Amino acid sequence: MKSQFVADLNPGDAVLSFFRVRFQRLEPFRDPSKGQYLSLILADRTGEMPARVWEQGPAVAGQIARGSVVKVRGKVEAYRGRQQLIVARIRPAEEEEYDPADLVRTSERDVEAMLDAIREAITAVAEPHLQSLLHSFFGDEEFRAALRQAPATLRLHHAYPGGLLEHMVDMLALACPLLSLTPELDADLLTAGILLHDVGRVAEFRLSGLDIVPTDEGRLVGHVVLGDRMVSERIAQFADFPEPLALRLRHMILSHHGRAEWGAVQPPRTLAAAALHHLNELNGQVSRFAALAGEGREPGRAWTDYDPRLRRSLYLGREPLDAEEDTD
Amino acid sequence: MKSQFVADLNPGDAVLSFFRVRFQRLEPFRDPSKGQYLSLILADRTGEMPARVWEQGPAVAGQIARGSVVKVRGKVEAYRGRQQLIVARIRPAEEEEYDPADLVRTSERDVEAMLDAIREAITAVAEPHLQSLLHSFFGDEEFRAALRQAPATLRLHHAYPGGLLEHMVDMLALACPLLSLTPELDADLLTAGILLHDVGRVAEFRLSGLDIVPTDEGRLVGHVVLGDRMVSERIAQFADFPEPLALRLRHMILSHHGRAEWGAVQPPRTLAAAALHHLNELNGQVSRFAALAGEGREPGRAWTDYDPRLRRSLYLGREPLDAEEDTD
Amino acid sequence: MKSQFVADLNPGDAVLSFFRVRFQRLEPFRDPSKGQYLSLILADRTGEMPARVWEQGPAVAGQIARGSVVKVRGKVEAYRGRQQLIVARIRPAEEEEYDPADLVRTSERDVEAMLDAIREAITAVAEPHLQSLLHSFFGDEEFRAALRQAPATLRLHHAYPGGLLEHMVDMLALACPLLSLTPELDADLLTAGILLHDVGRVAEFRLSGLDIVPTDEGRLVGHVVLGDRMVSERIAQFADFPEPLALRLRHMILSHHGRAEWGAVQPPRTLAAAALHHLNELNGQVSRFAALAGEGREPGRAWTDYDPRLRRSLYLGREPLDAEEDTD
Amino acid sequence: MKSQFVADLNPGDAVLSFFRVRFQRLEPFRDPSKGQYLSLILADRTGEMPARVWEQGPAVAGQIARGSVVKVRGKVEAYRGRQQLIVARIRPAEEEEYDPADLVRTSERDVEAMLDAIREAITAVAEPHLQSLLHSFFGDEEFRAALRQAPATLRLHHAYPGGLLEHMVDMLALACPLLSLTPELDADLLTAGILLHDVGRVAEFRLSGLDIVPTDEGRLVGHVVLGDRMVSERIAQFADFPEPLALRLRHMILSHHGRAEWGAVQPPRTLAAAALHHLNELNGQVSRFAALAGEGREPGRAWTDYDPRLRRSLYLGREPLDAEEDTD
Amino acid sequence: MKSQFVADLNPGDAVLSFFRVRFQRLEPFRDPSKGQYLSLILADRTGEMPARVWEQGPAVAGQIARGSVVKVRGKVEAYRGRQQLIVARIRPAEEEEYDPADLVRTSERDVEAMLDAIREAITAVAEPHLQSLLHSFFGDEEFRAALRQAPATLRLHHAYPGGLLEHMVDMLALACPLLSLTPELDADLLTAGILLHDVGRVAEFRLSGLDIVPTDEGRLVGHVVLGDRMVSERIAQFADFPEPLALRLRHMILSHHGRAEWGAVQPPRTLAAAALHHLNELNGQVSRFAALAGEGREPGRAWTDYDPRLRRSLYLGREPLDAEEDTD
Amino acid sequence: MKSQFVADLNPGDAVLSFFRVRFQRLEPFRDPSKGQYLSLILADRTGEMPARVWEQGPAVAGQIARGSVVKVRGKVEAYRGRQQLIVARIRPAEEEEYDPADLVRTSERDVEAMLDAIREAITAVAEPHLQSLLHSFFGDEEFRAALRQAPATLRLHHAYPGGLLEHMVDMLALACPLLSLTPELDADLLTAGILLHDVGRVAEFRLSGLDIVPTDEGRLVGHVVLGDRMVSERIAQFADFPEPLALRLRHMILSHHGRAEWGAVQPPRTLAAAALHHLNELNGQVSRFAALAGEGREPGRAWTDYDPRLRRSLYLGREPLDAEEDTD
Repeated sequence: MKSQFVADLNPGDAVLSFFRVRFQRLEPFRDPSKGQYLSLILADRTGEMPARVWEQGPAVAGQIARGSVVKVRGKVEAYRGRQQLIVARIRPAEEEEYDPADLVRTSERDVEAMLDAIREAITAVAEPHLQSLLHSFFGDEEFRAALRQAPATLRLHHAYPGGLLEHMVDMLALACPLLSLTPELDADLLTAGILLHDVGRVAEFRLSGLDIVPTDEGRLVGHVVLGDRMVSERIAQFADFPEPLALRLRHMILSHHGRAEWGAVQPPRTLAAAALHHLNELNGQVSRFAALAGEGREPGRAWTDYDPRLRRSLYLGREPLDAEEDTD
Repeated sequence: MKSQFVADLNPGDAVLSFFRVRFQRLEPFRDPSKGQYLSLILADRTGEMPARVWEQGPAVAGQIARGSVVKVRGKVEAYRGRQQLIVARIRPAEEEEYDPADLVRTSERDVEAMLDAIREAITAVAEPHLQSLLHSFFGDEEFRAALRQAPATLRLHHAYPGGLLEHMVDMLALACPLLSLTPELDADLLTAGILLHDVGRVAEFRLSGLDIVPTDEGRLVGHVVLGDRMVSERIAQFADFPEPLALRLRHMILSHHGRAEWGAVQPPRTLAAAALHHLNELNGQVSRFAALAGEGREPGRAWTDYDPRLRRSLYLGREPLDAEEDTD
Repeated sequence: MKSQFVADLNPGDAVLSFFRVRFQRLEPFRDPSKGQYLSLILADRTGEMPARVWEQGPAVAGQIARGSVVKVRGKVEAYRGRQQLIVARIRPAEEEEYDPADLVRTSERDVEAMLDAIREAITAVAEPHLQSLLHSFFGDEEFRAALRQAPATLRLHHAYPGGLLEHMVDMLALACPLLSLTPELDADLLTAGILLHDVGRVAEFRLSGLDIVPTDEGRLVGHVVLGDRMVSERIAQFADFPEPLALRLRHMILSHHGRAEWGAVQPPRTLAAAALHHLNELNGQVSRFAALAGEGREPGRAWTDYDPRLRRSLYLGREPLDAEEDTD
Repeated sequence: MKSQFVADLNPGDAVLSFFRVRFQRLEPFRDPSKGQYLSLILADRTGEMPARVWEQGPAVAGQIARGSVVKVRGKVEAYRGRQQLIVARIRPAEEEEYDPADLVRTSERDVEAMLDAIREAITAVAEPHLQSLLHSFFGDEEFRAALRQAPATLRLHHAYPGGLLEHMVDMLALACPLLSLTPELDADLLTAGILLHDVGRVAEFRLSGLDIVPTDEGRLVGHVVLGDRMVSERIAQFADFPEPLALRLRHMILSHHGRAEWGAVQPPRTLAAAALHHLNELNGQVSRFAALAGEGREPGRAWTDYDPRLRRSLYLGREPLDAEEDTD
Repeated sequence: MKSQFVADLNPGDAVLSFFRVRFQRLEPFRDPSKGQYLSLILADRTGEMPARVWEQGPAVAGQIARGSVVKVRGKVEAYRGRQQLIVARIRPAEEEEYDPADLVRTSERDVEAMLDAIREAITAVAEPHLQSLLHSFFGDEEFRAALRQAPATLRLHHAYPGGLLEHMVDMLALACPLLSLTPELDADLLTAGILLHDVGRVAEFRLSGLDIVPTDEGRLVGHVVLGDRMVSERIAQFADFPEPLALRLRHMILSHHGRAEWGAVQPPRTLAAAALHHLNELNGQVSRFAALAGEGREPGRAWTDYDPRLRRSLYLGREPLDAEEDTD
Repeated sequence: MKSQFVADLNPGDAVLSFFRVRFQRLEPFRDPSKGQYLSLILADRTGEMPARVWEQGPAVAGQIARGSVVKVRGKVEAYRGRQQLIVARIRPAEEEEYDPADLVRTSERDVEAMLDAIREAITAVAEPHLQSLLHSFFGDEEFRAALRQAPATLRLHHAYPGGLLEHMVDMLALACPLLSLTPELDADLLTAGILLHDVGRVAEFRLSGLDIVPTDEGRLVGHVVLGDRMVSERIAQFADFPEPLALRLRHMILSHHGRAEWGAVQPPRTLAAAALHHLNELNGQVSRFAALAGEGREPGRAWTDYDPRLRRSLYLGREPLDAEEDTD
């Protein structure tokens, strides 16, 4: 079983443990007469670090696949201010040697408790067709299994198995005071929108070994339309599902990104759709900022690294450091 | 039967004919003590003109609905450089009194010949699943009936019943040399994309009397996703339709507007999707410019009126006139 | 005292009541030989309606100022599908004749209860400097008085006296689950940000009679910088207010609009600033959609009027009507 | 000769004077049984005002062309807070009856003095080819004649005959300190760029009677390319004009609008082109603001009307008034 | 003569052949005490590959110029998943040793046949002035010579000598059905626009040795204005060329990029200009997608590399691979 | 004292001199068994160059801090077409060994003369409150000391100590002809705006050793609001400073970037604010282009390197070279 984790390693440490292969490529030595070495990124549930297999690289490269698990003996070195693992021995691990849960970051929350919370929210839905529709999804073990593995996004927020469940449960919590404050807002519709707006995520990504990667469908259709279709197909199984209700619900899914340039198929044209969009933004963006700030937290740092997607550094609040961002 | 048409009327003409009501509203006389008159826009297949019912307006207003047909006696007058019809008598028409074809602008082309051309194009599709899918649509009389009535857009181009058929047939013609020039381009897929990319239009609009108006579904879902779903549902009826082929076809539908800000759910990520998008632009935009230039053609005019959607006037090429467009 | 309210009037009603003048202008009769009449918009706390003073218009125009209160005798007529009040007699009202509360729309919520809720939230702030700062504002009767009168925005949401208080109190409620879900988020800082981000609103608007209009300062400086300065000046009165804390708080105010093109002086660069921005969006936008949907609610209408700021109609969900919005 | 000017007229004044027809159209009386009247905009060098010819309108309309001059007897009335001229008699004026200089706004500066200043600037150009090129333009009486009549823009700034000369001369003055401060900047090239960047304006506009209107060439080619071609053709007449020098000069003309979306064919890629662009902006925009502020100056007004091109009102600085601009 | 081509080389191959130098630079060995080696990119008509001259690098660097041809002896090695050529001997080639056609990618189509097709299209032009103008260009051997060498763009599509001819001939073919479908469209004008819109390309690029690079004129003026001027100058040689016709034609050239931000000097304001723009887009973009998809085609790849200009990967349609593109 | 400067060094030179450390990091040798070396960027007032400390790197790294000064013995080598300094010995310098003025680029102009010019401009301000306010700033030795050290921007223009003073003095010079040409423009207000619009820059940056880096305040508040507050606080010390004057001045500071997306808090809404913005652009952009062109000037180069902020290369005007910029 795995006893050493990336997050705990320090320069000088001797390592003997299991890791997941996030990336691998043969690269030449700088002195080209020496041939090639193997460059790796090794990961476990606590993080990832670069690794190098020097002379044996070409010999072992063929046995090691992206997304697979390896057993590694080596030593941690400091390199350009970061750590890397110099590998003395490496081999593919057998499935019985490790626990996959040690090797993949997953939600730190209790998945079954989150499913319970969703079940409870469904029970509170008074509109019978919406309740039945939700039961049809969340009572389906195949869907629940997919959900347990699904991230909410690939990289922006909740980007790990179980992340999608967290996103749903958190939005339910955030919706509570909003519903109290907004009597015009249909609680059943909002609950349904929260629980169904991202169901397309389960078809947008797939496992490649232990890695999460986008599917072709995810890239050619996108989770918004994938989700709309999953919902439409389930609705079609109910003979008497009211057409206007279906239309309102589908509109919420199709518009939950808020603006065409952010990926919305339609801009929100109902109160419930507007509420869903802004709850989604609130939960997604606050999670993203919290994660960036968390990753950037090191002793003596006042600012995170520049984040190219967000186009800024975040202020952490201790001593100032320069960032690469432009302040002109 | 109808013997006088809007396009032929001149100031001073006495009128006794049938028209479709495009718009109606009671408006007060400028001297408010005189009460209200009825303001109308009357239309037939050749065009439309404003009309006024003076004193009797309030009395007849209740009998006249938007989209309905009326019989009118009156006289044409010039008003602000345009013509208007001063109505002496007006009453709802009976269905047997008129031929709807006289009252609605439709394609000037032979609808059945266009359907034949499509049938021929389908026959030429070699890939059997695509051919079956196309047969499923175009062999379905209900779909064909909807198609005969469908415009391609509400206002931009081919904006009349039969316009959607014209758009399809024209794109097939435009695709011929493109396929010759581009051996990498899959002809069957492009034909299928041309014939199916806008099928959602038949659910985006509906008749309100004889008028075409958007449906709720058209505004809350949009023709792109409506069409994707219609195609997906037909595909689901074929047990063996290859999944990758379905994906390519759906991607073409979802990306045919080219850019998110122009309404594309995804940007084109295949050669066939890019070809479909640019054929659609070519046919749509050239039709739009041709229509604008045609409407603006009057003796002595070098420029059309300013078109607020296009944000420009078009040059017609005779003597110059000022336009409202800014040239600073 | 006022016994008839705009919201209760119907065509044919005889009116004898007090109204606030929202707008007034002399306009010529359509028959120009008849001279001018007086066009008014009259308002009370329940809404507003157009009014006309025919022959006496020029004579009374000089006595009636925008923002003042008048006593009116007249009759309600239908005009272009809306109502207007035909005025037989009109005169300026004396202050003792009416209750200003009848004439201005204000928050329907209990202002003192909202102030209590804020006081409670301040008590819960553990960080002593922030608590003191908040006391300095909310314990200041002059500030509280301004707050009771302040709208949150001129037209977009909470656009009436007391609206700013509603916006604050609602955001406090919305922040509760967010804080539970986000342990990294500093609750004291977020509370302070919620209560102070819009304090500049009290200087951005002023009363012109009973009307709310922007101040010169509001238009030349803007509520964001006005608020930042009000907060900075109060902070300067505390000898020991920690500089980094002040910086974080000011950054929240300066960035609460989220993007430069939406009016943010800086984009949010801290977790608390991001949270504040998205809570503000959630509360502001949901309120705006709720208000638009509420105003548009009439029997038989499925869609609101086209809203030029939002660039769309909202779906209300009964029978469809055409909207002016483009669906091409 | 003309003795009364628009800028001096007040309500109640009896008028007997000459005016230029900026606009004319027959419009119906509001009581449609009364037929049509003639709506005019009459102008002279001091401004413009609306005018109405009631009963005689149709009879005189045919004699009055846009851009022509008329003799008018009538009376000034107040209408919607503005003045309008009620015409009792109107007839076309004979050319010998009026001085065109009274009827068209022109530069208030001495045109010949401006041409002298340009001649002086040309004399100071040391580079012989540039000097010859400039002489070729400004020594050409036909070009000078066109220049005397040319505005710099149709509406934005210097929008009157002689305005282009003002723009050139002002930019020469503004360039002086810039050249002192920037030794790397080629003074001869900058002078040439200032004097030639807008020469295309003389072909962009034409006189329609006494009115300035855009030409077809102005709208289909634009002043930037028109100017580039005028300069290129003159250069082609010099056998030995250095090609790199021609290229630099043409680049300045083609890039003087700075950005593609502002009308630049290329972005500035030389120091001299960047300097030309920003001098052009400085002079053009400050002139535009000065003109807007000047027009808006009325007793008691703190803000100008909302300017739709600039999308704002300007602050004039006295008592505040509401503007239509949004401050939310 | 050349017997080995880049496209046919495999790791381990011994090489003795001629190549064009696309790029060269001395770089230090990673062990800096060993001095520098020469890094090259060598190309022929079938593709390009990196090459290294180890110890002799500094000695031979001076003899080898970018765009020149060299004779090379060496061996192919695999490096980072790509091939590179390790050079044992290298020397400049004599002109008589190689055929330039082996060393530069050119159109695979018969250049003279394309010129014939153009000649035929010109013969079909009925409008005599346009026909004469086209003869003036395409009957000019100097222009034809430039045309044979000209690419349509530097990198986006048809980016090789003869590419411009392909672009013209292909657009003629694409225009055929468009003209049949659009009777309002002037065939002669469209033919002239197709054949002349990109003539400026011959001045936008030049040969640097055997390489194509942009000229200064190309970067400071651009092919749009260069082409407009070439056409204007030829038109000026015809005494009787109708001015309105010249204007229409020039407008087509100046507007063929469609939008200011895409490089259009004016937006299309005529039907023919709109048609030209969309034909240009159709041919250019479909060619670009076809080329990208072709380059990306390797066994087992479902997606091309991320293309930074297009900001996406293209789907090729076999097994999925991750791409670097974001799908969040 | 320092006798050798970066700008004068050539390959092969022996170096013994003092330099400022702009950057330092330990990096591994390419042959990883050899451990790490120290990579440096060394600077003085004439420029900067990379340096390497091979074997001794790890031993000396701890003694050398960014922003500190070192004494170096070594030799200049050519590397990838640039020079680098191979360090034989390096040690921290004592403060008395060097003159900081040798080590930091500063304005080449006489700082006291610039302050005199400002004093003179203040004397010419007739409005007494503005004059007093300006005296309050520029008569304050602490502010003057900060000003002597302040750059105008971090990288775009005037990016060195004293640069802010240059920017102020240059704008005063550029304003002279503008004021002559624009009688409506308030000279006192413009002078005050020029001298105060960028005072926030002194708080936006700080020294880190001898390096200029942004402060936390600079990044969380920004120089626009920092400057507004500095001015507001000084104004508050004058009991009788007219409120409207303060408002106009503050508006100039808050709007001097011209557009929200360029960093303006408000768009300019007064003539003086518009003038300030365009003077700022003129001086800033021309300085930026002059600096880029100056840095790019090397024998035989016609184009500068591609500038990623400006998104273009600049033309210098000799023989053409390819640039990386796209010309398609």
